[in-house]
Amino acid sequence: MSKPMFENIALVGIGLIGSSLARVIRREGLARHIAVASRSAETLKRAKELKLGDDYTTDARKAARGADLIIVSVPVGACGAVAEEIQPALMNGAILTDVCSAKSSVIAQMQPHVPEGVHFIPGHPLADTEKSGPDAGFADLFDNRWCIFTPVPDTDPDALERLSEFWRRCGANIDTMDPQHHDMTLAIVSHLPHIIAYNIVGTADDLQSATKSEVIKYSASGFRDFTRLAASDPTMWRDVCLDNKDAIVEMLVRFSENLSFLQRAIRWGEGGKLFDLFTRTRAVRRSVVGQDVGLADFGR
Amino acid sequence: MSKPMFENIALVGIGLIGSSLARVIRREGLARHIAVASRSAETLKRAKELKLGDDYTTDARKAARGADLIIVSVPVGACGAVAEEIQPALMNGAILTDVCSAKSSVIAQMQPHVPEGVHFIPGHPLADTEKSGPDAGFADLFDNRWCIFTPVPDTDPDALERLSEFWRRCGANIDTMDPQHHDMTLAIVSHLPHIIAYNIVGTADDLQSATKSEVIKYSASGFRDFTRLAASDPTMWRDVCLDNKDAIVEMLVRFSENLSFLQRAIRWGEGGKLFDLFTRTRAVRRSVVGQDVGLADFGR
Repeated sequence: MSKPMFENIALVGIGLIGSSLARVIRREGLARHIAVASRSAETLKRAKELKLGDDYTTDARKAARGADLIIVSVPVGACGAVAEEIQPALMNGAILTDVCSAKSSVIAQMQPHVPEGVHFIPGHPLADTEKSGPDAGFADLFDNRWCIFTPVPDTDPDALERLSEFWRRCGANIDTMDPQHHDMTLAIVSHLPHIIAYNIVGTADDLQSATKSEVIKYSASGFRDFTRLAASDPTMWRDVCLDNKDAIVEMLVRFSENLSFLQRAIRWGEGGKLFDLFTRTRAVRRSVVGQDVGLADFGR
Repeated sequence: MSKPMFENIALVGIGLIGSSLARVIRREGLARHIAVASRSAETLKRAKELKLGDDYTTDARKAARGADLIIVSVPVGACGAVAEEIQPALMNGAILTDVCSAKSSVIAQMQPHVPEGVHFIPGHPLADTEKSGPDAGFADLFDNRWCIFTPVPDTDPDALERLSEFWRRCGANIDTMDPQHHDMTLAIVSHLPHIIAYNIVGTADDLQSATKSEVIKYSASGFRDFTRLAASDPTMWRDVCLDNKDAIVEMLVRFSENLSFLQRAIRWGEGGKLFDLFTRTRAVRRSVVGQDVGLADFGR
């Protein structure tokens, strides 16, 4: 096995992402020592049973002490508090990164707490399932997924390359963009789809229970395609909505405008408008499928 | 092989559903003879190359002549014209059925043309993929899917049982309900999800091309779950929207009300409301997954 990239990696937060990192770090031998921190004693106990790290603590600062890589994998809303808590323990030359889906907010929350000499590099692996918690993670989660960095000004190129190499060894492909662009792109590609999925499943859940059970019974006819996203972690997605508010509301407004146009076309029997849209969207599917052969019967 | 259930089955329309029926009828030996009719000479040529039937015609009336089972598998909007066209050829005692997703409209269109002594039994197999045309069909399409009948008053119970047995041998499970209830249930479980999927993919397609290519590139982070439905047959879905208008608009109004509530909660930072909805929807996923083990990593 090649020499470990890092001496001590601190994983602050050990949910789906954190525990997947723990597993792949171990498998690839990327660290000599893994310190696992979780606010929840119960989660920590489970992480220990799963042997995800070398030591375990509910004190993030303790985990961060002496670490040359600290990966914060907590909901967006908790990033600032974590940064403030671990600040005194951060070692000169250490790399501090995160995995959150709303980068402008993460930067605003964490950067003020980053000491001189510590390399803060915001990151976001586009890897997710509807499951959460330390049991949900797996070493292949990042295989061939994108990891997007949104570097702050004056980021040390060597540190950035070192973190990039770490993620490549975790299986990911690397991209970099500015935080605002990241947040707008993710709003349409990830945040809006999740919110819409939550909303359509919620709308069905509001129906009288007889109808509701039929929705489950017949879900294969379309509804089912939405339920996976609507089962994602509530805390994480509450925070994403609150911390990428502007981009999300902008996309929601566009979506609702278009939906009103569509509803009006249905009400007034304007078949041509419907046919045009329904034809246009086919091409998008072809592009998506084109990039992923495993997608052939995706969603069935 | 057991004695065929029918002497001559006429398949009017040979797209995804019609061609899947042709394949399973052949495999299960459910008919002595299969007549294939399609308005499109090109589709018919392809059906012949695929050996889907015993003879082929662009004249639906010719196919229906002497058939003891006629299955109309055309878009909702074309059902009335087909019924009118084949009427003179319909044999006394024959069973006439369809596969459309909007039953009240199908009944209103077809029933006036059904001669005395012909058993008209509206049906709807809840089996679909995003593909269309005679190449898209496969014999297993109906395996363990629901086929819902919406019988009209005074339907002959023997004919209904005979058609039910036919669909069971095609792999489907049988349900019956009244047309209005079917249309309202399908509006939420199938029609609304398709319309929403079309709309979100269309919204992304409106973005400037740079962003659009990023939507494709990063689609695995949520967007992708919508693209399958948004690739469904445009003609079929235009007709469904027009022919189940009232139920669909009713569901769209509920959906939009809820989405406005959600958007307002995001704008005003009301995390509690978001968390409550995002938690409630998880249970629905569990029920859906509970009924289908193959669903574990559905949508990834």
